Amino acid sequence: MEMKTPKGTKDYLPEEMKKRKIVMKRFEEVFNKYGYKEIWTPAFEYLEVLEKKGGLGEESVKDIYKFQDKGGRWLGLRFDMTTPIARVIANNPNLLKPIKWYYISNMWRYENPQRGRLREFWQAGVENIGIKDELIDAEILALTYDALKKGGVKEFIFKINSRELIDKISKYYKIKNYPEFCKLLDKKDKLTKIEWKKNLKKFFIDKNLCVGFLRLIESQWDEITESIYSFAKKEIEYLEKVVDYSKDFGVKKKYLVEDISIVRGLEYYTGFIFETFKKGEEHLGSLASGGRYDNLIGLYSGTKIPATGMAIGIDRIMEIVSKSISSKPYVDILILPLKDSFKKSAVRLSSILREEGIPCDIEIGRKSIKKKLSYANSLGIKYCIILGEDEIKNKTYSLKNMEENKQYPFSLDDLINYIKKNERYVWSRIGQKFI
Amino acid sequence: MEMKTPKGTKDYLPEEMKKRKIVMKRFEEVFNKYGYKEIWTPAFEYLEVLEKKGGLGEESVKDIYKFQDKGGRWLGLRFDMTTPIARVIANNPNLLKPIKWYYISNMWRYENPQRGRLREFWQAGVENIGIKDELIDAEILALTYDALKKGGVKEFIFKINSRELIDKISKYYKIKNYPEFCKLLDKKDKLTKIEWKKNLKKFFIDKNLCVGFLRLIESQWDEITESIYSFAKKEIEYLEKVVDYSKDFGVKKKYLVEDISIVRGLEYYTGFIFETFKKGEEHLGSLASGGRYDNLIGLYSGTKIPATGMAIGIDRIMEIVSKSISSKPYVDILILPLKDSFKKSAVRLSSILREEGIPCDIEIGRKSIKKKLSYANSLGIKYCIILGEDEIKNKTYSLKNMEENKQYPFSLDDLINYIKKNERYVWSRIGQKFI
Repeated sequence: MEMKTPKGTKDYLPEEMKKRKIVMKRFEEVFNKYGYKEIWTPAFEYLEVLEKKGGLGEESVKDIYKFQDKGGRWLGLRFDMTTPIARVIANNPNLLKPIKWYYISNMWRYENPQRGRLREFWQAGVENIGIKDELIDAEILALTYDALKKGGVKEFIFKINSRELIDKISKYYKIKNYPEFCKLLDKKDKLTKIEWKKNLKKFFIDKNLCVGFLRLIESQWDEITESIYSFAKKEIEYLEKVVDYSKDFGVKKKYLVEDISIVRGLEYYTGFIFETFKKGEEHLGSLASGGRYDNLIGLYSGTKIPATGMAIGIDRIMEIVSKSISSKPYVDILILPLKDSFKKSAVRLSSILREEGIPCDIEIGRKSIKKKLSYANSLGIKYCIILGEDEIKNKTYSLKNMEENKQYPFSLDDLINYIKKNERYVWSRIGQKFI
Repeated sequence: MEMKTPKGTKDYLPEEMKKRKIVMKRFEEVFNKYGYKEIWTPAFEYLEVLEKKGGLGEESVKDIYKFQDKGGRWLGLRFDMTTPIARVIANNPNLLKPIKWYYISNMWRYENPQRGRLREFWQAGVENIGIKDELIDAEILALTYDALKKGGVKEFIFKINSRELIDKISKYYKIKNYPEFCKLLDKKDKLTKIEWKKNLKKFFIDKNLCVGFLRLIESQWDEITESIYSFAKKEIEYLEKVVDYSKDFGVKKKYLVEDISIVRGLEYYTGFIFETFKKGEEHLGSLASGGRYDNLIGLYSGTKIPATGMAIGIDRIMEIVSKSISSKPYVDILILPLKDSFKKSAVRLSSILREEGIPCDIEIGRKSIKKKLSYANSLGIKYCIILGEDEIKNKTYSLKNMEENKQYPFSLDDLINYIKKNERYVWSRIGQKFI
């Protein structure tokens, strides 16, 4: 029988899982700091909800994992969280605006698995729903900046643009077949320069305009704005205001790159958009991306509600930061009863320590003290408490510091005081120890 | 278009989600304290893995949500975590024993939704794999006890039994069709007494033995052990040792009820088993249950490996404890720029506060200060920082304590010091404030 996980999925064993939880926790802290609240939706939706026109786009709809319920209705696993959230908003029209929600969830797409892109993958994201303002777009960017920094990603850049700007430019340059044109723009770094240019020409009625467009796209931002200011004033000013607020929010200038070739794949974006790349590892794809989608919620709710959001690809982030996260053991203290008859004492001691807030564990599988200590070492345990003949008789506890290879005899009270003095346990979701 | 979640599933909006996270976090703290480490497996498995004979049992296999992948292979959503974990162990034969793993995960069963039982439901559970010892069974019980207590469940009882004991008793009483007999035992509290007794008779060749069995099952534990000691000495002693260790682990005596009519539904249990009921709300079903399953891992790995575990039903727990958990807002501080031109100052202030570890948010959707303050009140915000004409001119910040309805003018440094002195922010996964 096949014992593997299905193609494109994987198990997260504790060492890896703990690192993931540390990174997810840091993301959450940032989201919370900006006032975003957590939401969770079911793993599957009615298929018609997921397939709603204008959302993911036709190409991606075919990547939905779908199945029928017992009543014959079609269900599908969620492929992102923006769509279920749009459905939730439609279901709850009386929610106070702005709605500031975050999620850290798994989702599923039937794509061909590749590096950093699994069929079951995880995203940490936020949505800000109800207000259209440059400040909100900048907040999303600043929050992403903080999250990536806190998550341990050092060198990255935001490539930012605006769908409205692309619209305006395309109209000016008399582009035909606009959706296909956008798809090609998106492939600028994936195709060779010659190939890309060749394909680009097809969209221009006037070859001279194509030359002008090529010159434009290869220009610096200042030159671009100068040459399109006459017909795209509003759009340029919006984008520059987003950049301005982002700096006020604390995003360093060098992280911000305006780039009119950035389009984002998803059809539902309407305004400000961005993608994030690790410097020198652009081939890994976008680490985090998002933008404004002022029409999507309306598709579900019937009322137009502006919205903006972003999602961080956790699997890709883990590829970058995993090595730099130390994965300490979950417990620092292992109690070693040297005889079966001492197990009762070990249990009682464990109960007292845990009651005091001290995590610990009991070793009972190995016979000799040598094997017990070597087991403790392979777990990376810091302290062993040895319960032998003498210790039981004298009611003492031998605390062995495995790092220093030193052993101290303690009374119960002294033992607890010593541990509390030397180790401070503050519980977090990942059982991590602070200071 | 249908905007509902699929039958038997639901959305968790922030207020509810936060409470769930608090409870889950408390469970995790307890699991970590006992040395259990987190594991995560994919949402779906190859169907043959889930359907493996001897696992969930035939009746439940039909409740799997299943679908085909593009290559035509059948996949199924996980219905519990014990089965995927057994598969992981088979995949990783060199893991150090004992393996102590926990999970807090969603799973899916195609059952008819009922109170406290959804089609997408959540469990928090642990598995201890590699050692057969009464101490381990007791540890599982003690950990469940601690988790329920910390999770806020006040009055509950463990009904404990042993599959080996039921085996022995059934043999002694010459039971025919043992699996069906177990199923009927399980229904003791679901059928009327008359109905149950009537059905019970069918399993006895000798009617006198049925009378004896009925007398036995209605006896106190002391009488039971006395009458079956001659043929079930080993099994009684094992169970009593589990009880003994449990008390050493700190489980109060009154929570422990031996009950030979407890069988647990799942086929894979082989030894110690338990179910947990809230006192006076037994009709809600079991809050947490588990037991020893020494043969399941072997089905997957080919090598017999003893194991024991338990799972807590999070949805049922939430029904009980939800009301008693206070759901504070995610941020305490709302910055109110009174004019659009003050938004830049608001952004800069928010950036400084967040840099100092202080969560805050900016209100920009409402025009009048009255509306802004009333919005803050409906969110339950503790402090508002007002940025008006005077404040901008004099570089002061008016901190309004919404609870006391008092307003203080501060310099930036004084503002930060005041907040830090009065509110201490320590970040946890749920953005909760300690102390």
